[in-house]
Order: sequence, then structure tokens, then C-alpha cells
Amino acid sequence: MTIGAGGEHLMAGSPGKLYLVGLGPGDNLYLAPAARLALAECQVVVGFRGYMDQVADLLAGKECIAMELGQELDRAEKAVALAQAGRTVAVVSSGDAGIYGMAAPVFRVLTDRGWDGESPQVQVVPGISALQSAASLLGAPLMQDFCAISLSDLLTPWEAIQRRVNAAAQGDFVVVFYNPRSQRRTWQLLEARRILLEHRPASTPVGLVRDAYRPSQRVVITNLGQLEEEIFLVDMFTTVVVGNSTTYLHGGRMITPRGYEEKAAARS
Amino acid sequence: MTIGAGGEHLMAGSPGKLYLVGLGPGDNLYLAPAARLALAECQVVVGFRGYMDQVADLLAGKECIAMELGQELDRAEKAVALAQAGRTVAVVSSGDAGIYGMAAPVFRVLTDRGWDGESPQVQVVPGISALQSAASLLGAPLMQDFCAISLSDLLTPWEAIQRRVNAAAQGDFVVVFYNPRSQRRTWQLLEARRILLEHRPASTPVGLVRDAYRPSQRVVITNLGQLEEEIFLVDMFTTVVVGNSTTYLHGGRMITPRGYEEKAAARS
Repeated sequence: MTIGAGGEHLMAGSPGKLYLVGLGPGDNLYLAPAARLALAECQVVVGFRGYMDQVADLLAGKECIAMELGQELDRAEKAVALAQAGRTVAVVSSGDAGIYGMAAPVFRVLTDRGWDGESPQVQVVPGISALQSAASLLGAPLMQDFCAISLSDLLTPWEAIQRRVNAAAQGDFVVVFYNPRSQRRTWQLLEARRILLEHRPASTPVGLVRDAYRPSQRVVITNLGQLEEEIFLVDMFTTVVVGNSTTYLHGGRMITPRGYEEKAAARS
Repeated sequence: MTIGAGGEHLMAGSPGKLYLVGLGPGDNLYLAPAARLALAECQVVVGFRGYMDQVADLLAGKECIAMELGQELDRAEKAVALAQAGRTVAVVSSGDAGIYGMAAPVFRVLTDRGWDGESPQVQVVPGISALQSAASLLGAPLMQDFCAISLSDLLTPWEAIQRRVNAAAQGDFVVVFYNPRSQRRTWQLLEARRILLEHRPASTPVGLVRDAYRPSQRVVITNLGQLEEEIFLVDMFTTVVVGNSTTYLHGGRMITPRGYEEKAAARS
């Protein structure tokens, strides 16, 4: 990673730089030095207001362009325009910018503008994604093959999402649901549950993690059968982890065995 | 996260503590402070020799128990025994300890020993996984639903892996392959490629990332069709990312559009 001296205004005509920075779960203990350095080097920070509040102490003296949810393409346009004008810009996302974050809209805008891959320079700085924050608090649910599925049908047709839930069920993947439920999208998680129940028992462990690593953190372990009654616990800030056919509970943790133990049993 | 003052030897009978720490890609710029603090607090570090070398500067003065690959259950047994004897122990994995790392064997040993969920205290500290390191260097390939599949059939029967590759193909998931190929396991990735080619065109972008964020880093973008000729570039230190039906290349990057742009196009 190349981190130059930061802060100075570049002259017009200098190549700008775009950092796509994942802020992780929101506790700076989980923010890697590379992300911290990118925020230190940039002149301008572009992002959703709520995420920028997370790192307010790191943004002192920066030009901040805060936008609302749903303005992702506007944010990307603004950031690219600033970088093309020679500024060093950080576009921030919660979690990992490359997992349902700001990386794709920024690259889309760059593509539409005929970006040559060099100028402005673009660097993606990965962060701890919600699937990892949730898993670490639940135990070890992701120790076999898993998939991430966003249940938001604002950007993807429901038919495509349904096809993926079906595929995940058939493949016996551990499933992590992003954007599982909001005030307007209330039935999608229940429909996904119905599909999974065709392939997995009602006793399959399900973890619900909200506001991981924040003061308001809440971790609930339930199962596929009971999820219908507990659906009110799930909102757009919740990550839902559904175990596969081998996931079990012990000591209040949700554990998917990797297979080492079966191997050991076979040896003995 | 509770991080106490560290280093002192606890008296026999004191409750021990187990940290399951993900070291990320191997460059300390991507190691979060929480992981650094866990390593500072522990008295004993248990892990694969190669991963411990990554953080040698953070392990000065620690008792280090280095083991070889394949000894995962032995490492877990040793770590749990030490924690049960009152020591503060860090078990380290590369990437994220909860994604194909040491978390599951440790929880398995705890389960077998009738762990009550409290003593020893267990804390999983997430790290940047190979799927994120690879994605950040390739561009933005993981911006739609994706899955992680390990192609190692040492711990999982090939039939189960094949079923998952088929499901991933049918669901049009972006696919990240861990453990794609070794000197002994040479045909699994080619077989996975054959299955994916039944559902995706030969032009589907494929990214190969080896030793992300290390001096020996190598990033190659190819496609499903050409992967057969370039299979020699893939070894057990390589992460393979296969795009879905919408993934495209621009400016030397591999980009899966999130859907924002289609939404904008539909508005205009």
C-alpha cells in the first residue's frame, strides 16, 4: 500500500486519488491502520451521514460531503468528479466497501466516464464486513462453505433473490442475509425461511446480530422454526446467519464444524 | 471488547481466556487494533508456524507454540488445555479465524470437554479474510450475492463440494474458491470450472490473487475459458474469484455492478 504525505492541496492537473474505505462494524478497535491512513491522507470524505458519524474523530479538518441513503450514485459521481479535479477523496462505507458497499457505484461511474484504470488512482481498502462481525459474536457459524444474500429487492428483482435462496438451500450453504427486513420490506425474510425449511429442519440454528460492536449491540440465537415468532427482532440493521445441516449450539454459541473432528474420528 | 492488562501469570484456578484471532492477509497495515491488543494481552500464542512468522514483531516475549499444517485439532487441544489451566491464550489464523480458520476446531474441543460457555472465556477477533483481500485488489467483484467454497476434499467429500458448485452456478452467485489447487489436488478447480461453464459464458471474468498485500503479491485477471491454460498459476496460496453473469472488466478491474446504475437507467 502506498500512502503519501497527505493534506496538501494538489495543483489543478495533478492526478487525483480515490480511496474506497470500509469502516468495519463501527468500533474503531476494528478499523485497520490502512483505513486510518487513507482517512488521514484524504482531503475530502464522501459518505452516508450515519457512517461518517462513526469516525467523526478521524475526520477533523476534512471537507465532508455527507449524503443520505439511496443517494449512492450521486455520492459516486461527486467523489469521481473531485478526484478527476485532482483531489484525494475517501468514499466510506460501513463494513467492507467491496461487499454491498460503495465500490461498485464508484467503479460504474468511472467506467461510464471512460476511466483508463490509472487516473485517478483508485484503491479499495477492505474492512470487517457485517458477516464477520456477526459470526465472531455468534461463535463459529461460517466454518463451512457459506453465501451472502441481500434480501433487498430495491436493486435486484425478487425472482433472482428467490433463485439464490433456493440454490443456497440445495447446496446446504450456511447463509448470511444482508438487508433482511425493513419497515416496508416485511415478507422477504419469511419467504426465504419458508424456502430454507424445505431443505433444513426447523431446529436449524439462526443467529440475529444487530449493531455489532456498538453500545446497542444485540445478539440472539434462535432457530428456523421460531424465527417466524421472533421476526420483530429483525430490522435493516440486523444481520441474519442461518446454519447449514451440521450447525449446532453449545455454550450459547452457534458452531458449524469444519470437518477436522470427523477426520479425527475416522482415524481413531 | 474487554481488554485487560496483560502479561502476568494468573494463579492456578483463575479462569483462563482464549482469543481466536484472525491475522488478515499478512501485512500489519490490515491488522485491526483489537487483534493487536489480543496478541499483546495473551501469554501464549498457538498457531501454524507460517502465520506466526507474519506477526513475529508482535510476539516478542510470548510463549509460542508453533505447529504444522494438518495439526489443527492438536493445536486446538493444546490451546484449550492451557486456557483451562488459567492462561490467556491466542490461537491465530491467517485471514479471519472464523472463515476456514481455527475457530471451529477450538469450539469442537470445548464442546467435547463440556464447556459451559463461560470458563474459559472465549472471544473471536475477526480479521480481513482472503475473499476480501482478493476482491479489494481485483476491483469490486463481490458487489452482488456471493459464496465461498473450499475445494479441499480432505475434510469434505467431493460430492458435497460438487453439489455446492452446482448450486452456486444455478444461483448465479459470484464464487470465491479457497484451497483451489495443490500439488496433490490438481483436478478439482478444473472440474468446478466445467460445472460453471454449463451456466456461464467462457468470457466470464476470473481473478487469481496470490499472497495479497505481501511483497510476492500477484494479481491476474483471466476468464473461465482461459483458466484451463492458466491453471498452473493457481496453487494453495491463491484465491480464485469467478464473476457472475453481470461481472465485467474495465480499467484492468473486475467489477460486478450492484444494480444502482440499472435503477438510475430505469428512472431516466
